[in-house]
Amino acid sequence: MSRQQLVLATGNAGKVREIGALLDALSLQVLPQTAFDVEDAEETGTTFVENAIIKARNAAQQTGLPALSDDSGIVVPALDGRPGVYSARFAGADASDADNVARLLREMDGRTGTERNAHFCCVMVLMRSAKDPMPLISHGQWHGRIATQPHGDGGFGYDPVFVPNGSDTTAAQWSRAEKNAVSHRAEALRELLPLLTRWHDPHR
Amino acid sequence: MSRQQLVLATGNAGKVREIGALLDALSLQVLPQTAFDVEDAEETGTTFVENAIIKARNAAQQTGLPALSDDSGIVVPALDGRPGVYSARFAGADASDADNVARLLREMDGRTGTERNAHFCCVMVLMRSAKDPMPLISHGQWHGRIATQPHGDGGFGYDPVFVPNGSDTTAAQWSRAEKNAVSHRAEALRELLPLLTRWHDPHR
Repeated sequence: MSRQQLVLATGNAGKVREIGALLDALSLQVLPQTAFDVEDAEETGTTFVENAIIKARNAAQQTGLPALSDDSGIVVPALDGRPGVYSARFAGADASDADNVARLLREMDGRTGTERNAHFCCVMVLMRSAKDPMPLISHGQWHGRIATQPHGDGGFGYDPVFVPNGSDTTAAQWSRAEKNAVSHRAEALRELLPLLTRWHDPHR
Repeated sequence: MSRQQLVLATGNAGKVREIGALLDALSLQVLPQTAFDVEDAEETGTTFVENAIIKARNAAQQTGLPALSDDSGIVVPALDGRPGVYSARFAGADASDADNVARLLREMDGRTGTERNAHFCCVMVLMRSAKDPMPLISHGQWHGRIATQPHGDGGFGYDPVFVPNGSDTTAAQWSRAEKNAVSHRAEALRELLPLLTRWHDPHR
């Protein structure tokens, strides 16, 4: 049986590997959008799900294949939800991870207790075509708090200042396997899998 | 205990009654956006969830309250998903239900068997504020087929030509109670209720 092809709306090789391994068991072949020279779309949404849809629709449009995307970020309730969908550009359009972390630590300065609560969010979207009016959507969250200074050199993004609930170390001090077992992206992927059973037959 | 207020991003009195009754049990007080003179936002999305977010964000912005919205329509796979998000304006911007039904029957002319399959879709969205980056989202579907001519005068929209799976009559021939037990909107509401437990505490 030939495998259903699926384009992953990201240029991130790590994500392609991780998601591809998981979906291989479902007879889905995941191809990175870089293999098709897909031009990025502008992420103009104010919610994770809108930005994930923008990316998936863009990839489906340019490749003619079904497309899977994710959008993620870190939410600090005491900062009115920021950095949120702007996590990757919190310190500016071309900000590095270190710039973004420094900006977050400045904004958290003087905050203590539950004011340091934060959660990573991930939303995954699967569009069967660019015109799919009801994409499959899944969510994941990872709860913790913001440390007062960075620790560890694993992971990426805000991992060096994110201390998961029940832990004394930052996500950047965790092994990749430990993180992949409980992270927001792992939860969203787990929630997506049963939805994929609808994939071939919307008239189940 | 005072009840948490919530604005419902619709002017439809029937929806306000139906949803209000259900959420009353959760100590949530549902207010229609007409009570606040909310101006409608333009529904520019290509997916139900984008349009539901546009409506909820608009109502939250103009009232300062959390907002609940829904967006729904009918999807015909043989028509490449149409009318989909354009269900209410399939025959034009000011089309009546009868105009839309007539247009759909014209497009279905000559189609038989599984080509007449269709499903109603409903997506509900709850935004805690206009800036909420991760709204609660639920989905419902109702599967059936398109009749060759309208029957019945209950319901609204495409109900007179929608024959639910396992039935010989159209949704417009069903009682309101029968429809509310199994419809796409009922399923979306049922799926939303457990998500509302996250409402007060995103750090559950």
